[in-house]
Amino acid sequence: MTSEAVVLDQALLDRFAAIVGDAHALRAEADIGPYLREPRGLWSGRSPLVLRPGSVEEVSRILALATETRTPIVPQGGNTGLVGGQMPHATGNEIVVSLSRLNRIREIDPQSNTVTAEAGVVLEALHRAVDAADRLYPLSLASQGSCQIGGNLSSNAGGTAVLAYGNTRELCLGVEVVLPTGAVFDDLRKLKKDNTGYDLKNLFVGAEGTLGIITAAVLKIFPKPKGRKVVWVSVLSPSAALELLSLALNVAGANLTAFELVADIAVEFVVRHIPGTVRPLSDWPWHLLVEVSSGRSQEDAEQLSEELFDSALFGDAMATFDAVVATSVAQERAFWALRENISDAQKPEGASIKHDISVPVAAIPEFIARAALEVERVCPGARVVCFGHMGDGNLHYNVSQPVGADPQAFLSLYRPMNKAVHDIVRDLGGSISAEHGIGQLKREELLATAPAVGIELMRRIKAAFDPAGIMNPGKVL
Amino acid sequence: MTSEAVVLDQALLDRFAAIVGDAHALRAEADIGPYLREPRGLWSGRSPLVLRPGSVEEVSRILALATETRTPIVPQGGNTGLVGGQMPHATGNEIVVSLSRLNRIREIDPQSNTVTAEAGVVLEALHRAVDAADRLYPLSLASQGSCQIGGNLSSNAGGTAVLAYGNTRELCLGVEVVLPTGAVFDDLRKLKKDNTGYDLKNLFVGAEGTLGIITAAVLKIFPKPKGRKVVWVSVLSPSAALELLSLALNVAGANLTAFELVADIAVEFVVRHIPGTVRPLSDWPWHLLVEVSSGRSQEDAEQLSEELFDSALFGDAMATFDAVVATSVAQERAFWALRENISDAQKPEGASIKHDISVPVAAIPEFIARAALEVERVCPGARVVCFGHMGDGNLHYNVSQPVGADPQAFLSLYRPMNKAVHDIVRDLGGSISAEHGIGQLKREELLATAPAVGIELMRRIKAAFDPAGIMNPGKVL
Repeated sequence: MTSEAVVLDQALLDRFAAIVGDAHALRAEADIGPYLREPRGLWSGRSPLVLRPGSVEEVSRILALATETRTPIVPQGGNTGLVGGQMPHATGNEIVVSLSRLNRIREIDPQSNTVTAEAGVVLEALHRAVDAADRLYPLSLASQGSCQIGGNLSSNAGGTAVLAYGNTRELCLGVEVVLPTGAVFDDLRKLKKDNTGYDLKNLFVGAEGTLGIITAAVLKIFPKPKGRKVVWVSVLSPSAALELLSLALNVAGANLTAFELVADIAVEFVVRHIPGTVRPLSDWPWHLLVEVSSGRSQEDAEQLSEELFDSALFGDAMATFDAVVATSVAQERAFWALRENISDAQKPEGASIKHDISVPVAAIPEFIARAALEVERVCPGARVVCFGHMGDGNLHYNVSQPVGADPQAFLSLYRPMNKAVHDIVRDLGGSISAEHGIGQLKREELLATAPAVGIELMRRIKAAFDPAGIMNPGKVL
Repeated sequence: MTSEAVVLDQALLDRFAAIVGDAHALRAEADIGPYLREPRGLWSGRSPLVLRPGSVEEVSRILALATETRTPIVPQGGNTGLVGGQMPHATGNEIVVSLSRLNRIREIDPQSNTVTAEAGVVLEALHRAVDAADRLYPLSLASQGSCQIGGNLSSNAGGTAVLAYGNTRELCLGVEVVLPTGAVFDDLRKLKKDNTGYDLKNLFVGAEGTLGIITAAVLKIFPKPKGRKVVWVSVLSPSAALELLSLALNVAGANLTAFELVADIAVEFVVRHIPGTVRPLSDWPWHLLVEVSSGRSQEDAEQLSEELFDSALFGDAMATFDAVVATSVAQERAFWALRENISDAQKPEGASIKHDISVPVAAIPEFIARAALEVERVCPGARVVCFGHMGDGNLHYNVSQPVGADPQAFLSLYRPMNKAVHDIVRDLGGSISAEHGIGQLKREELLATAPAVGIELMRRIKAAFDPAGIMNPGKVL
């Protein structure tokens, strides 16, 4: 971090403001406030200036000046990140660069199945534009009404469609990046195959704005499925869920478009706190939201879902499961609502300590079994609200406080709880941040626990790309 | 390149040899010959020593000594690369490190759908092992009987299955790499989601051994399709082929497992020179080899192929095409043989100048039209043998000499022909090396024509990872 050395005097702020014009250089507290507080209240910071450049050239001039004057820059998209990567520190000596005005969809190419979009395009706006071209952009996130493409790329966002379509990294074919020097790396290519040197694109994707600012990207789009079937499945154990996943992948392959695991307590919370929700099946400890899609027809999707559970019945361990097939779009939405409202339904249950982990798919049952014991050890009576993208090995392993406990006392266990859960994750060869990134939240833990060889390589890349250390200092590394 | 400064004296060679033991340190001309000549005669080089380490630790000691003594190292897998990346220079002052003894399949995890294999595992051996676990490793290459996993990764190999399964980069979940210092970067994780810092894995994949030596990798495996249908389709033009591709993707999506374009002259060459081959349809200028797969059943694959060509019939531009559906495994093989024997069938037709290019899928018809004019301008009467992975925008754009022309005179046009074809590729936002890499062959052209910003970033990465410049110098950069 070089940020402590910098004083953002008025003359310097004026030079930055002049690049974008006064109307887009926010300094009044009322104007910059929304950029300095994460909407859910998780993160806040300080800054004397928020720049809203209107062109790639303006971004380039901002970063050139920042490198010249060693001024720390915090790039920001839709400000929905959960780990503080988009938020300036409390020091107040960083300038926020919001990409929200770079919100043009430059091109949709339905024959190449690509869309070229600027960083500030809101995900939902991209969905609509691509939908109008009879295509699907599959990235689907709870924050899609406000999160932006640049943030999706910088955090390598995941979501529920990763199983069939991949995460943001896999959805990205090319990037346009302004480097810390102001130079523009234009690699906006619509190519599925290109072996001409090192893979620079994937360095910028997931770098959380520490290597440069992504200003645009070429993203993959897909033909829209013509049929879909959603099935709510209840099973006795994570092992049974794992066996069902194997069977489903065997039959449906890439047509298996969701395989979400939900602990019964999560359904209980949703039904208790979210009006209009109903439990499809009672008296089962674990549930699955399974979705299959078909490019052929609705009938084909229905037939596929039938075959899937037929074949599942053949499995020995599957002797005991139950399933409800959604018979209307309304029922499909109701099933998805059970999954999507879990985080909201946790709030009325008191404080919670959350984890965003992944392990090898085969290790999920072991992880769940071992982690439950550790949680009980750290905090007897704490309630494990485990759910997530089982097909990706990615669980949101959230722990709600014991009933009636003091929320602050529970939250004081944040670090030992994290450590207990993450130690198991590491032991199983997993990741302590499957889809939310490192940001500020997990930086210290990453540096303390990741293999030194990897951290050293990351530091060398950071130094090679951003020798002045201006790009989002104190994030990730 | 630092290699010219080094003298490989006997004492130094002995130090390297001692690491692996004399039995695995080849020095006799008869022993090292096969490592210094690419089997097809495209590339050859010189070296006083070929090391065949038997463990990751030996690889580590070799690279540590190489960095200490600034000795250039050329990593080598199955020695099948087409661009000379695996071959030492003629200077004779480089040591070849063959990974072929690191040939253990460490684990197959059918529930996580991963295989962990060492660099020296031959691709076909991996196919067999994975097949025995009732899974598919989809990478399929002409050289699969001898190419190795490490080479596949270092060259980010492509092939015919990329359309549905991705190239080697997408198939790789984790790597184990010995860095130039000898440090081992162990990132052998079986995770589909991991957002803990920069994507180091994808830097090593496709780096052609210039950043370190990949010693093992975790690769994705897939459930085996239960049904397959191969269709030979003949069309009037690349535009008609493009329209058919869109229709096929709409209906079959990820079940479309091949979509290969073949110019009629390529079929003509195969039928003329490869015994036992038969032309499925006559009097059409362009052909497609289309394959669909099903995880459900053979009947489902058949039904899908029928629906596909039903829907194709609805397209206006599709009023004129013809299709033959393979009705036996023998006929499927016969169709594939027409595609796979093209390179061999070109040889009896004289000299050829080859290109491995990609363009955005939508630009394929324009590329083919413009390139044909340029080829005729550079060499009147030259015969364009165009074929490739249309679904990936990747064409092997080979040009055979005019009938009866002098081969050497034709080959003297190599550079102007390359330039003419590649200028169009660049103009269309394409790649001059879609799947074969840069190696020695395209290094000068890459450095002369790629955007300077990207080359500079690659140089910085190279310097950051390999400051002594020992890893495969003079390749890629």
